Amino acid sequence: MRNLDAHEDYKVDKAQLHRDLAGLVGSFPTPREAYPAPYGVVGYGEAWWPAQLAQLWTGRLMAEGGTQFVLQGGLDLGAAAGAVAAAEASGARVLRVGFGDAVDVPVDPHPLSPYRYLRFLQEATGKSETGDRTDRALAALAAGLKPEVPTEDNPAKFFAWNLVERIPVWVVSERYAGTGLAPALQQTFARIAGSLSIAPPPGSLEFFITALEARHEQGDPLAAVVLGEDERTRLAVEVLETRVDTVLELPEPPAEGLIPEAMAAWYFVAWAAYYLAILYGRDPGDAEVLARLREEA
Amino acid sequence: MRNLDAHEDYKVDKAQLHRDLAGLVGSFPTPREAYPAPYGVVGYGEAWWPAQLAQLWTGRLMAEGGTQFVLQGGLDLGAAAGAVAAAEASGARVLRVGFGDAVDVPVDPHPLSPYRYLRFLQEATGKSETGDRTDRALAALAAGLKPEVPTEDNPAKFFAWNLVERIPVWVVSERYAGTGLAPALQQTFARIAGSLSIAPPPGSLEFFITALEARHEQGDPLAAVVLGEDERTRLAVEVLETRVDTVLELPEPPAEGLIPEAMAAWYFVAWAAYYLAILYGRDPGDAEVLARLREEA
Repeated sequence: MRNLDAHEDYKVDKAQLHRDLAGLVGSFPTPREAYPAPYGVVGYGEAWWPAQLAQLWTGRLMAEGGTQFVLQGGLDLGAAAGAVAAAEASGARVLRVGFGDAVDVPVDPHPLSPYRYLRFLQEATGKSETGDRTDRALAALAAGLKPEVPTEDNPAKFFAWNLVERIPVWVVSERYAGTGLAPALQQTFARIAGSLSIAPPPGSLEFFITALEARHEQGDPLAAVVLGEDERTRLAVEVLETRVDTVLELPEPPAEGLIPEAMAAWYFVAWAAYYLAILYGRDPGDAEVLARLREEA
Repeated sequence: MRNLDAHEDYKVDKAQLHRDLAGLVGSFPTPREAYPAPYGVVGYGEAWWPAQLAQLWTGRLMAEGGTQFVLQGGLDLGAAAGAVAAAEASGARVLRVGFGDAVDVPVDPHPLSPYRYLRFLQEATGKSETGDRTDRALAALAAGLKPEVPTEDNPAKFFAWNLVERIPVWVVSERYAGTGLAPALQQTFARIAGSLSIAPPPGSLEFFITALEARHEQGDPLAAVVLGEDERTRLAVEVLETRVDTVLELPEPPAEGLIPEAMAAWYFVAWAAYYLAILYGRDPGDAEVLARLREEA
């Protein structure tokens, strides 16, 4: 097994993803003008999550009049073009953000792009104050999670060690309902660690207590990863404790407000996934397989 | 291993769940009066899915005026009471459907209750025509999936055999986006088969191609279960073919319309989960563990 404190074991990270992680804050396109409200946001491919987060303040997918943001995150098989046409027909100004056809604001394909789309949207729709809080939370985390910080002081490295050969189950407090946080963690963990994880359905307590009945004695190597404290989360941990290999608590996000907190949790998991990739000897920035799929689609 | 065509191997099914499965069509409470529109529907615990399906035609969670349906599916930790209070304050008539406190229309806790909530809602909100189509689809399936139909003629038994010791990954056509079908299959598979399965995040193509990179050579025992044919689903199968143990296609639902089709797929999976429980020697109707949790919560 590799050593997370040994410089040479990071050689698998060909694209130097740890630099993108450490320097993520501020790495987003700045809007060059004011866009008229009301705002609609739809997102495809790797940009589905920022679009879902934006629902929390715009309240709508499609704008009528105002500005329609179409986040082109790839692999949409024509759906983004359809959204553009529908928005134009309704009289909205359309702004295409992302990559591919006729993009107005470029955001390259990247495992960390959800942050970049989100921060652009916050600045473009008058939510820069929430954006600043998001950035402060990520910046506060970044210093303690870098490769230079040794394992004994680095909670993301600790997490990675505990996830080796295990499948994470994301146990997210009801507080984050509607943010799409659990599937976002599932997506980013797949992109960076190249690994499978499980986002539970709504009614997750029932799921936790029933889904592991038939086979848990066969030792499916699961790790419950818990975010947030409330009655429901406490019960979930009680249920899972006897059914999974280990229960890990995500550190409390050093953030104020729902979106900054969700982004801080996502950022921590991105770092943990990064270290897990290093432990597996997998290039965490590996984009080749996705690029091929995108060409084919 | 057990034999799905041998009468004695069904003895683990103490509550005779196969009778509830075979006789599901029509087993829902009939509304006794007309409820005023507009309609809002919220659902908790095992009733989250029918509430999400109802969004497809009511378009809203909370009614202002009109009728607010609160589906009390258990384990809501006070949330249902909160919804009742909010709806009453807004001037809506409130109808509590489900079990627990002050229920107006009882629906018992049951792994198949999503059908019963849904059919009640369809009848109560002027959608009985869609309800009839749903029932015709389920009735058309029921005859061929019963325990009396031997394995060679029974596709649900065939599915169960192919899912033994494997974790299903639900690959659902984009056509069902917004129906919550994949997490609903995940929930019902857990309830009846006592087993884990994986619902992918949005942007599922990316997930499929990345999530199995680090470990797929270690042979995680996965089965892709595919519903629907379109370009995206075809690509997903192409990606998954080399990464999972087996790819299984759900039979095309004998139904017209999105909700009848989704319910038909769910019903098929419920039968397959039932047979898998029999193969594992697990009581498919096992409600004890859930009842204990509900008392504790």
